[in-house]
Amino acid sequence: MEKETKVLCLLNGLGHEDVIRQYIPEHNILMGVTVWTAGLAGPGRAHLQGVGALNLQSMDPSNQEAGHQVADLLNKANLNATYDENVVPNIWRKACVNGTMNSTCALLDCTIGELFASEDGLKMVKEIIHEFVIVGQAEGVALNEDEITTYVMDTSVKAAHHYPSMHQDLVQNHRLTEIDFINGAVNTKGEKLGIDTPYCRLITQLVHAKEAILKIN
Amino acid sequence: MEKETKVLCLLNGLGHEDVIRQYIPEHNILMGVTVWTAGLAGPGRAHLQGVGALNLQSMDPSNQEAGHQVADLLNKANLNATYDENVVPNIWRKACVNGTMNSTCALLDCTIGELFASEDGLKMVKEIIHEFVIVGQAEGVALNEDEITTYVMDTSVKAAHHYPSMHQDLVQNHRLTEIDFINGAVNTKGEKLGIDTPYCRLITQLVHAKEAILKIN
Repeated sequence: MEKETKVLCLLNGLGHEDVIRQYIPEHNILMGVTVWTAGLAGPGRAHLQGVGALNLQSMDPSNQEAGHQVADLLNKANLNATYDENVVPNIWRKACVNGTMNSTCALLDCTIGELFASEDGLKMVKEIIHEFVIVGQAEGVALNEDEITTYVMDTSVKAAHHYPSMHQDLVQNHRLTEIDFINGAVNTKGEKLGIDTPYCRLITQLVHAKEAILKIN
Repeated sequence: MEKETKVLCLLNGLGHEDVIRQYIPEHNILMGVTVWTAGLAGPGRAHLQGVGALNLQSMDPSNQEAGHQVADLLNKANLNATYDENVVPNIWRKACVNGTMNSTCALLDCTIGELFASEDGLKMVKEIIHEFVIVGQAEGVALNEDEITTYVMDTSVKAAHHYPSMHQDLVQNHRLTEIDFINGAVNTKGEKLGIDTPYCRLITQLVHAKEAILKIN
């Protein structure tokens, strides 16, 4: 990589920037979020489904120009990219969708619709959202609990018949999960901030225990 | 039942006495705990394995005589019964074994040994024990967290190859579980006492969600 090579991170979850910062100077890092649905059709062959979108922002506010250039480049490939002046709340909102559905559906071996049809499933979802919101707010991210709850509920209806990716990883293919960057990241951030997040912590422990039971390394 | 018919409750878990009290006067209730391992060999045919023991106590302290009579009667059938002046801590100790192993092994579809071999499994176990102990102590039950932890760990070694009964119910036979009288009871008692027990609450919600997903009524 060159001195000015930009790195764009569109991964689900939270806390990636702390890892990337160990290798790349902050002014070269772009953070983003995408709702494109994609799969791998083979080595190097990504297959996009339906219509999606992509938001990104330069981590270094004095370096917006590079972010705009990357967004323009992605738009030449019709990827529906937007330079977002405030991408962090969107990243948290999507992490909250993953944090409520992915880990729980993997643990319960169910679709998103089955989870949300259960009264106790809904109670869990609401407590998990609350933990994400209080930790995000303590980090200075503008998050509205009601708005996020509505977004999560809407997503659950649209994706009712899906098994989330963590179900595909853990249950279907016995692969390691990204739990440390979803519920685990909220618990780690919470510990640093003095905020207890027992739902995120127990879910992370349950997923890691299941990885160990399945002998996934 | 006659006016003086005694009712002896040896069920696993906590909170049964509140239900029984709605039907039976307190001076007729005997509470107890047993470590006999038993199965049903057919209708009306209980099959005991190995050597066990049974402790019981009258709920009404002024009515110990009936408790001693019932213990004597059970000993005529070689059931190794003891009248226990302080049975409640023993009931909690066994509930704690069930609360750490039964629900978690059912959720993770694993043996007790597999759960306890996992570092994250052990972390969960310790947090669950802590919740049982603080709620029990707040109810006035003399519980020692270190002593209970040692007892749970010892039991996990002896029963390493077993799938707990809740695994048999939920995973193997798709039957309703007794979670409301184990982790759920601790959470309900905790709520009344103003003590938050998120691990017990989330575990109860996960088990109920799984019951709903499996359409068990």
